[in-house]
Amino acid sequence: MDERIAKQIAFALELDKEKSVFRQTHLSEHGRNENDAEHAWHMAIMAYLLKEYSNEPVDIARVMIMCLIHDVVEIDAGDTYAYDFKGLETQKAREDAAKERIFSLLPEDQKAEFIALFDEFEANETPEAKFAHSMDNFQPLILNNSNGGGDWKEHNVTAKSVYGRQSKTRLGSEKIYEITDKIIQENIRKGSLPEG
Amino acid sequence: MDERIAKQIAFALELDKEKSVFRQTHLSEHGRNENDAEHAWHMAIMAYLLKEYSNEPVDIARVMIMCLIHDVVEIDAGDTYAYDFKGLETQKAREDAAKERIFSLLPEDQKAEFIALFDEFEANETPEAKFAHSMDNFQPLILNNSNGGGDWKEHNVTAKSVYGRQSKTRLGSEKIYEITDKIIQENIRKGSLPEG
Repeated sequence: MDERIAKQIAFALELDKEKSVFRQTHLSEHGRNENDAEHAWHMAIMAYLLKEYSNEPVDIARVMIMCLIHDVVEIDAGDTYAYDFKGLETQKAREDAAKERIFSLLPEDQKAEFIALFDEFEANETPEAKFAHSMDNFQPLILNNSNGGGDWKEHNVTAKSVYGRQSKTRLGSEKIYEITDKIIQENIRKGSLPEG
Repeated sequence: MDERIAKQIAFALELDKEKSVFRQTHLSEHGRNENDAEHAWHMAIMAYLLKEYSNEPVDIARVMIMCLIHDVVEIDAGDTYAYDFKGLETQKAREDAAKERIFSLLPEDQKAEFIALFDEFEANETPEAKFAHSMDNFQPLILNNSNGGGDWKEHNVTAKSVYGRQSKTRLGSEKIYEITDKIIQENIRKGSLPEG
């Protein structure tokens, strides 16, 4: 086997570990915790499905590959819950080390390409990155809403925190933000989310 | 919430069930069974990663969305193992009914679009469908190979059957088929796969 494809296959096999990184979000119908691979799969389809609502035109292939790989670093760094403010302090250092190790499995040109895609998502400045971020927020929101806001209750999350995080949704899609706002308000009304 | 986006969100939520459809393939490092969502996520990234090996130029966005949705019907129809020849006889009827139910959750235009993508994959005639099929075969192959061919042993699969299935890989990528052939031969040599 030549060296290039051997490296690509080694990277592909490494990705498998993302299926064992579990998130705080639960599957619908009060299911088990979701893992990173499932979350990324769901986000990528939702990006394709909802692309008409992006604030700006997007290259949907770039949005999808960003969605698919945006959590790869969690293979080493673990999942940091969106409302774990202590974990968030060390998140960048842990994820930078992981990024270097994991993408270094690839041939040089693809290492550069995947790191650029990963960084573009993180920087959240291009239309593609912003729309992918909207999906990163909206996908767990619809699961959590379907479970009566159980994930928020488990972690004593307040509406103020949720609105803080969801401000990014608006950068990618005003329409998705409008729906997000409706869902948050409904959960406040039902008592699933204290205004705090 | 307007009717269009309500339908899109209902479909997105329905997709969540694919995370509970388990396959015969096991995760690497002798892990648990893999589910359809994880398999599709892995395939879609591998399609992007390995696109240089497609026999024909492909629209990678179409390949990725095909990979991501190709098993949606298994929410109702269940997974049919590639070497379950009895299950394969009824597979089409079960999957057709599921296709109609699940994609009917979408607005009409998107129902038509997603069914067209799904059918294109199944027909395996376009460059995109053929390359997506190569990934559908190659992704479980690298997992199974990393586990010493455990999935084949569990189901008494022979090299003849594996070659039968893998003939589709060649239609999408001669290069991926070449690697596939090496992996199969190595497993025969090691005694993981009887020639039968």
